[in-house]
Amino acid sequence: MARISESTVRRLSHYYRVLEEVEAEGGRLISSHRLAEREGITSAQVRKDLSTFGSFGRRGLGYSVAHLREEIRSILGLDRRWRVGVVGTGNIGTALLAYRGFARQGFDVVAAFDRERVGQRLGDLVIHDVSQLPALAPELRLDMGVIATPVRAAQEVADLLVKAGVRGILNFAPRKLFVPAVVTLRNVDMTVELESLSFALAQRRRVRRRSPRD
Amino acid sequence: MARISESTVRRLSHYYRVLEEVEAEGGRLISSHRLAEREGITSAQVRKDLSTFGSFGRRGLGYSVAHLREEIRSILGLDRRWRVGVVGTGNIGTALLAYRGFARQGFDVVAAFDRERVGQRLGDLVIHDVSQLPALAPELRLDMGVIATPVRAAQEVADLLVKAGVRGILNFAPRKLFVPAVVTLRNVDMTVELESLSFALAQRRRVRRRSPRD
Repeated sequence: MARISESTVRRLSHYYRVLEEVEAEGGRLISSHRLAEREGITSAQVRKDLSTFGSFGRRGLGYSVAHLREEIRSILGLDRRWRVGVVGTGNIGTALLAYRGFARQGFDVVAAFDRERVGQRLGDLVIHDVSQLPALAPELRLDMGVIATPVRAAQEVADLLVKAGVRGILNFAPRKLFVPAVVTLRNVDMTVELESLSFALAQRRRVRRRSPRD
Repeated sequence: MARISESTVRRLSHYYRVLEEVEAEGGRLISSHRLAEREGITSAQVRKDLSTFGSFGRRGLGYSVAHLREEIRSILGLDRRWRVGVVGTGNIGTALLAYRGFARQGFDVVAAFDRERVGQRLGDLVIHDVSQLPALAPELRLDMGVIATPVRAAQEVADLLVKAGVRGILNFAPRKLFVPAVVTLRNVDMTVELESLSFALAQRRRVRRRSPRD
């Protein structure tokens, strides 16, 4: 399989959701147009994305929903379950711990860590002291860690997660983290989402401003 | 300017951050390699992205940091300020209201809405009743709205935001919303971020499993 970029992975996640939706509605075939159905994706892009992993629709019929869903599910690693630990139980951490969508997609949040509130219950979990991460690692067998701590603690927590054997880290703290090459790091920056809106709004203004002269 | 996809906008946000960083360090020129510096972006992709809006680096020298930063800033609509209202003051809403990065990038969160806790202070803001959205609109002049409510309230809140003149909506509620074509809608799904990790981890396993046979 060709190297798949982060942008492509995002689009695969999007296709996967559309496929789930169509399958729930009882649909068996889907067109590249329906899979696009979001600003910024063309049906040509859909066909290109899907052809890179060898899935080809049939002209006039489209793609098999069940088959394509299974294929993308496997590519995204959703055909198995992942054990996730959340570090930091402030607003973001608590929101993530409460989010039911994760388990539905194969992500089991099995541990919560903080420096404070240790021993308190949060949903089904008891908050552990973050310093216990490496000691608890063999029992917890975490695949992924989420960093939802204040900025100043983020690098130290990343180091602890790596020591605990975690191979994927999702970082919500707005700072650059350093991890060994064997660990995959993704940063979530809420401002990026707002920038996607300001881009669209600024574009509309530009178009409006320009149109009388065109 | 050619049509810019959502994936490209995300990459522009990423370049913008790298440029800010390099400028803060006193750098004046930057290579496409340094701008790539994230898994899944190649320097060829950087050059292609930047050439679509007419910015060309000079071979062996690279791009002017200040010039490129200004250019991307304007494209992303960050050369003006945006007025943002947050609806829902649960964990996600509260986290967003507390996040200082927004103001630094030009997003001023000027209003908070909820059905409960009306009249309570949250940071600098007093929580308004969400039903007051249209009535308060002329005074608030909101450009964007963030939906951080339970799923069942999300569509009704979207309708109220549209009525209040909002032209960009960021939705954290995990359901599909309908808005008029004149409004730009972006959905934030935390599971997509985890899927980008599970994809990477599954890929590594596949490569490891395959290598003895190669």
